[in-house]
Amino acid sequence: MSKDTRISMAVVRRLPKYHRYLGELLRNDIDRISSKELSDRIGFTASQIRQDLNCFGDFGQQGYGYNVKELHNEISKILGLDKQYNTIIIGAGNIGQAVANYSSFEKYGFHLKAIFDKNPKLVGIKIRDIEIQDVDELSSYLDNNKVDIAIICVPRLHAQSVADILVSKGIKGIWNFAPTDLQVPDDVIIENVHLSESLMTLSYRLNERNLFED
Amino acid sequence: MSKDTRISMAVVRRLPKYHRYLGELLRNDIDRISSKELSDRIGFTASQIRQDLNCFGDFGQQGYGYNVKELHNEISKILGLDKQYNTIIIGAGNIGQAVANYSSFEKYGFHLKAIFDKNPKLVGIKIRDIEIQDVDELSSYLDNNKVDIAIICVPRLHAQSVADILVSKGIKGIWNFAPTDLQVPDDVIIENVHLSESLMTLSYRLNERNLFED
Repeated sequence: MSKDTRISMAVVRRLPKYHRYLGELLRNDIDRISSKELSDRIGFTASQIRQDLNCFGDFGQQGYGYNVKELHNEISKILGLDKQYNTIIIGAGNIGQAVANYSSFEKYGFHLKAIFDKNPKLVGIKIRDIEIQDVDELSSYLDNNKVDIAIICVPRLHAQSVADILVSKGIKGIWNFAPTDLQVPDDVIIENVHLSESLMTLSYRLNERNLFED
Repeated sequence: MSKDTRISMAVVRRLPKYHRYLGELLRNDIDRISSKELSDRIGFTASQIRQDLNCFGDFGQQGYGYNVKELHNEISKILGLDKQYNTIIIGAGNIGQAVANYSSFEKYGFHLKAIFDKNPKLVGIKIRDIEIQDVDELSSYLDNNKVDIAIICVPRLHAQSVADILVSKGIKGIWNFAPTDLQVPDDVIIENVHLSESLMTLSYRLNERNLFED
């Protein structure tokens, strides 16, 4: 694929939302839906929806709309949810444990295989039948096991050194919860969840009115 | 403030990142920085940085750059971090407990005042000295206490009914971790953290190359 055919991140970030809404329609036994009806539910314009989906193929039919099950399947495939992923968590603090306990990720094909922490009080404890290992074992674990996605939940100051180990062992996907921007080669994909930044965006918007009235 | 002077969400979402980088500079005793140097660190172009900051005022000086402490303070104020917020959490499952334990939010002015859950096994348990209350107490708590931000961590199916209670009691800020889009009046601000969608975005990007080579 050339760089030019890459889909914009704005479109990509809307895909999981389509997937979620179509999943809800399926659960409600709705077989087909017009782009207008889908638009009313999801809150994007009908033309936006058609444009987004056109990036990936020719879905829907004039006068019929979308076959919900078919479109849900197609978007699942586009999102890579038809595949299986071995995941590991590094950092079994609050957020690491919360993510580890999210068993619903399994149904999308994300299988938690190992958890690492450096705290001796946590090492040996089991979360969902997975024993927390000493982070010193991380390198050798990666030598001996196929890992698709590593989830970084360590404090900010340790995140880059963990990322360096992951990259050196060939990990290409990192889900990063540490509040820092990791430096990695171009072929490694990082998806950040910066909770503090999300909370600050909320406080900004709560204060926005005052800001410009002062 | 008229609608027209509202800052675009793309700019708003970059503000916490400026705040974080300037905070790191401060910790490293760096007093001033040019927009070029800031650009090298943060990864936005210097002109982007100038444009973003110009939305809020006249920062920085030709030939001097930015005074780090001053700019950090100003961005703190813009983000509303000079104020104090009473927060409550509804839903003390995995993610609710993780957020409750994030004591670092306190330093930005977000004070956790109460936690609610409907699980009798959790009610009465303390997290950071805050006793989990029965969610049936939520309405009367809101009648008697000032709450600025409510954090929804309940399962999808219960999220809207919790939001309805919050809205009826005048809550204007909701940080929503439930994987659903809440329906609220226009004057209520919702900030979503949809973890599944973030993970799906990562799997999309891991598969993007194959998608267009097939």
